[in-house]
Amino acid sequence: MKRKIYLNMQPLEEAQRLFWSRFKDYATGEETIPSREAAGRVTAAAVSARLSSPSFHSAAMDGLAVKAEDTFGAADDNPITLDIESGQAVFINTGHPMPEGKDAVVMIEHVLLTDDQKQGVIRAPVYPWQNVRKVGEDIVATELLFPSNHLITPPDVAALLTAGCPQVTVRKRPRLTIIPTGTELVDLEYCTDTPPPGKTIESNSAVLAALARQAGSEVTVTKIIADDYENIKNHLRSAVESDADVVIINAGSSAGSADYTVQVIDELGEVLVHGVTIMPGKPTILGVIDGKPVVGNPGYPVSAIISFEQFVVPLLAMMQGLSLPDPITARAVLARDLPSRGGIEEFRRMIAGKIGAQLVALPLKKGAGAITTLTRANAMLRIPASSEGETRGSVVNIELLRPLEQIEKTILCTGSHDLCLDLLHDFLKKSTPAYPLASTHVGSLGGIMAIRDNMTHMAGSHLLDPETGEYNVSYIKRYLKNREVALITLVHRQQGFMVRPGNPKGIESVHDLTREDITFINRQAGSGTRVLLDHELEKADLDPDVISGYDAEEYTHMAVAVAVLSGKADAGLGILAAARALGLDFIPVTEERYDLIIPEEFLNLEMIRRVLEIITTSEFKQAVEAMGGYSTKETGNRVTLKST
Amino acid sequence: MKRKIYLNMQPLEEAQRLFWSRFKDYATGEETIPSREAAGRVTAAAVSARLSSPSFHSAAMDGLAVKAEDTFGAADDNPITLDIESGQAVFINTGHPMPEGKDAVVMIEHVLLTDDQKQGVIRAPVYPWQNVRKVGEDIVATELLFPSNHLITPPDVAALLTAGCPQVTVRKRPRLTIIPTGTELVDLEYCTDTPPPGKTIESNSAVLAALARQAGSEVTVTKIIADDYENIKNHLRSAVESDADVVIINAGSSAGSADYTVQVIDELGEVLVHGVTIMPGKPTILGVIDGKPVVGNPGYPVSAIISFEQFVVPLLAMMQGLSLPDPITARAVLARDLPSRGGIEEFRRMIAGKIGAQLVALPLKKGAGAITTLTRANAMLRIPASSEGETRGSVVNIELLRPLEQIEKTILCTGSHDLCLDLLHDFLKKSTPAYPLASTHVGSLGGIMAIRDNMTHMAGSHLLDPETGEYNVSYIKRYLKNREVALITLVHRQQGFMVRPGNPKGIESVHDLTREDITFINRQAGSGTRVLLDHELEKADLDPDVISGYDAEEYTHMAVAVAVLSGKADAGLGILAAARALGLDFIPVTEERYDLIIPEEFLNLEMIRRVLEIITTSEFKQAVEAMGGYSTKETGNRVTLKST
Repeated sequence: MKRKIYLNMQPLEEAQRLFWSRFKDYATGEETIPSREAAGRVTAAAVSARLSSPSFHSAAMDGLAVKAEDTFGAADDNPITLDIESGQAVFINTGHPMPEGKDAVVMIEHVLLTDDQKQGVIRAPVYPWQNVRKVGEDIVATELLFPSNHLITPPDVAALLTAGCPQVTVRKRPRLTIIPTGTELVDLEYCTDTPPPGKTIESNSAVLAALARQAGSEVTVTKIIADDYENIKNHLRSAVESDADVVIINAGSSAGSADYTVQVIDELGEVLVHGVTIMPGKPTILGVIDGKPVVGNPGYPVSAIISFEQFVVPLLAMMQGLSLPDPITARAVLARDLPSRGGIEEFRRMIAGKIGAQLVALPLKKGAGAITTLTRANAMLRIPASSEGETRGSVVNIELLRPLEQIEKTILCTGSHDLCLDLLHDFLKKSTPAYPLASTHVGSLGGIMAIRDNMTHMAGSHLLDPETGEYNVSYIKRYLKNREVALITLVHRQQGFMVRPGNPKGIESVHDLTREDITFINRQAGSGTRVLLDHELEKADLDPDVISGYDAEEYTHMAVAVAVLSGKADAGLGILAAARALGLDFIPVTEERYDLIIPEEFLNLEMIRRVLEIITTSEFKQAVEAMGGYSTKETGNRVTLKST
Repeated sequence: MKRKIYLNMQPLEEAQRLFWSRFKDYATGEETIPSREAAGRVTAAAVSARLSSPSFHSAAMDGLAVKAEDTFGAADDNPITLDIESGQAVFINTGHPMPEGKDAVVMIEHVLLTDDQKQGVIRAPVYPWQNVRKVGEDIVATELLFPSNHLITPPDVAALLTAGCPQVTVRKRPRLTIIPTGTELVDLEYCTDTPPPGKTIESNSAVLAALARQAGSEVTVTKIIADDYENIKNHLRSAVESDADVVIINAGSSAGSADYTVQVIDELGEVLVHGVTIMPGKPTILGVIDGKPVVGNPGYPVSAIISFEQFVVPLLAMMQGLSLPDPITARAVLARDLPSRGGIEEFRRMIAGKIGAQLVALPLKKGAGAITTLTRANAMLRIPASSEGETRGSVVNIELLRPLEQIEKTILCTGSHDLCLDLLHDFLKKSTPAYPLASTHVGSLGGIMAIRDNMTHMAGSHLLDPETGEYNVSYIKRYLKNREVALITLVHRQQGFMVRPGNPKGIESVHDLTREDITFINRQAGSGTRVLLDHELEKADLDPDVISGYDAEEYTHMAVAVAVLSGKADAGLGILAAARALGLDFIPVTEERYDLIIPEEFLNLEMIRRVLEIITTSEFKQAVEAMGGYSTKETGNRVTLKST
């Protein structure tokens, strides 16, 4: 086992320069295709018009074709009669050819016709060529229609046809071959149910293929290649020798004991860059074999995507003569501190929404292994290598991953987690207009702080006040003194101990948690469930220090359920729905109320009115109750806060 | 022949409301497709995870898998030796399953291995679950992956596969049938050479199909239907009875004598709107037959596109549960007055570019028949029905038809027209980065005024000073007193009389223009060619008033050539290249110099440096000379302006 050594580690921009400069004039070939199918393709050469348009003088209006001089002098006090029967004036429809000898059209609205339509009276003249589309007015034969490297739009298709070009010569789509490698990988399509133990579903090739297709590429994905030096080398060589324009190996790009990619590229060609100071995406290899670009793409899903977007997608554009649009950016207030390691450029996935007049951005987890940080994100924050991070409340530049108006429609819900929020998200997306609900899980108290600091539209909370037995009210009075808020009940729900099926350790009550053979999994401080546990421990006069695992914290009910299911812990406190979802047994402890806290001034926002509407519908309530462990007896009620 | 009557004319927004409200819940059906191919599709229902990810505790780093408690106490002054041979520590690669009994990974960089790799020494502890990706850390089985109506992105494909969903249920693509109608139309694919006289190439169906495909639709285009009431009715009925979700008739939507669309829709179903107060796009018919949307789309190409984008594209999005992004807008200074008719919302196609710190927008022609006004435009200005237009210099909101950075890369060239500008455009687009050259033709003097007012990057000019025989210099001194500019020669070119092949009227010199049997076609006042003509007339002591057609003006050399070719005129003054392009004969009059005027402060812009580089290359010069009538003897020379 060797230490990790990156052969030629580079900052992002330098790595891009080293890579792309080797393929500066690396263009795809040409092909001639029907113009009707050319939208989205790129011209390989300048295109000239073959025909003029219009190809004849034609009427630009419905009316009478005339010789303009026959109308001169017409006025309100000098109406002129045009004779239709004799052919002095001729009925004509828009687009039809002008009759010989006629050089203007009188609009039909300006003609008073006799009943027999044999004569027409006009009260104003037309000048020569008025209301006539002249030959070549739009396009003149031989003139330049489009230059080289022009991205053909739908209107361009009309111009091509109109100019007599039934076909057009365009750049071929670049051909990309993706070779997934990894002994641990399996193809989901070949798994009948769940993957064999220790195996991981291969998914990177599908994402990279989709990204490449979006970038105009044709993609071949080979079968999964096991981590074997000769095997990888043979497949890479035959991919380079095929008609592929670009070859991607995913992954084996790091420096682990089974990471052969860099040696293979080095043997067959040249490694330009090994390692880029970005995170995710560090173990990227940029190389060249027989003049073709070869990329060793990292294995973690987020790393794979960011590396591909930074190096390969722009290359595919260049090969087609296209320039990529810059990312759209916006200014946003950062909702949390974001420390960052100096010397590394970080790509942090963010959820952004509009609070009042400003965008607010909340960071998602940083792990490169969590694809959901990318699927949930609607923005990206790049923290430069020179920075040690950003502080909460500072205004940062975020790159938008969704259209701005969709981000502005996003409902931020920061606080305690409940599965009903997912249901609410689904109901919101089914309504028109569709509001996305972006919930981030920081516990009930974290949600109240986010409300206080204007970093969220609403917060889910279930904080028990042991003295009053009431939920949330005393916390709001303590922490949101200067904020007018509404407290609206979402659900009542069962809290209890989740244990493995059959309850093998025989856990009956909170007293069992102190047993030596029991490992507990806790929720983080500030979460309502943690408050509830502490309350139950106090009622039972139990010392938390005695509980093994009291210090091990998870941030969601589902994470607690997973810890129990996987054997990491024997019990955790959580909601029935989470236990049911993973087939765990459940020992009820109490029923609690889960509310939404919403600043008064947001109640009239269309997005919040939609939320309040949905939660009182019978469809929503039925869906909630169907999950089990929930009651909607007070759902939608506004809790009074005024009393002392 | 009837007067035009629109049955139910509406403003744009009211027309949209009347139309869309009838199809509020009109969704496409569902289909189940492989997740690998689902990018760009829309979920038809909420998608839940079938598997957790990771599905086992796995190493997050390459290193040694250990029991964390075996590392407790390790420090610089207390190195701990882990025994690999006995299995106390186990080599592990990223992503591989944690061995039974191990709960943390020591990064390989932090291990000092013995040479035989049987032992590893560490100097810092790891805590339980450090460097371990726990089961469900990314995705927990049963949790919501995506809500309904979610547009699936490439990263989402990875999440689907990782969560064990090889397939996903998405909305079917909406099916659109387009029926082109019009007795005057021909299909270019069936024309061997040029269309028969009086026939027009049908192109709208191709554009609408391309737009619909971009909007996620499947498109059927029927053959062209002649303007015959029963024929149109039968085809429309069978389209509605087919599996089409939306039917478009193009065109016959106006109220001309052969415009049957509105009666046909009225007979088979219901006309909701006939006529919309927009321009282009007024003769739009919005209807419903058997519950399906049916649109009578206008015939002029720009009208067809704008109407389709305003009414049908959003409908196709709604049917898929998508909301369309708002157009991206920017503020721009208007380069010309734009009067507009009150009561009509105008869609003016614009060319925008960045001059100094601000965007400048120049209007293109307004005619709905000119598809090139849309293919050349990079922005759209909407002038509301309540406005009578906008004035030059005012700041207006434009909708961007291209990415902003492409608009900012656009080189504005306003002034005299020369075919070499098209060549230059092609050369610029072939270089990297690609700069589009947007030339608008307002004559030499118009270009000088645009320079003066900071509305262009450069101006083409060939203004002869009859007193000095010098080009452009005296005009610059007169009109650009307060502007430091460079005058750079682009080409020398032949000016002469263009006449029909064989010179049937025997035109030899400027004296022939005064002959009674000769009709001339002139260039607009302020153009260099007009100045040249006037100079030649004065030299020959001829009276312009005697010349028939002296008052008929065209704006480009090609338009003059077309006027001659089509018989509208017998002669016009212009360049040899234009005559050659259309096969006209050419009687030389003089050689003139054509220069580019560029403000001094733009000379260092990368885009302008690129222009100056290109015009001095031998490739460019060869291409210029190949057109005929050009000399590049002084191309690229900077003309001295300082002398008095």
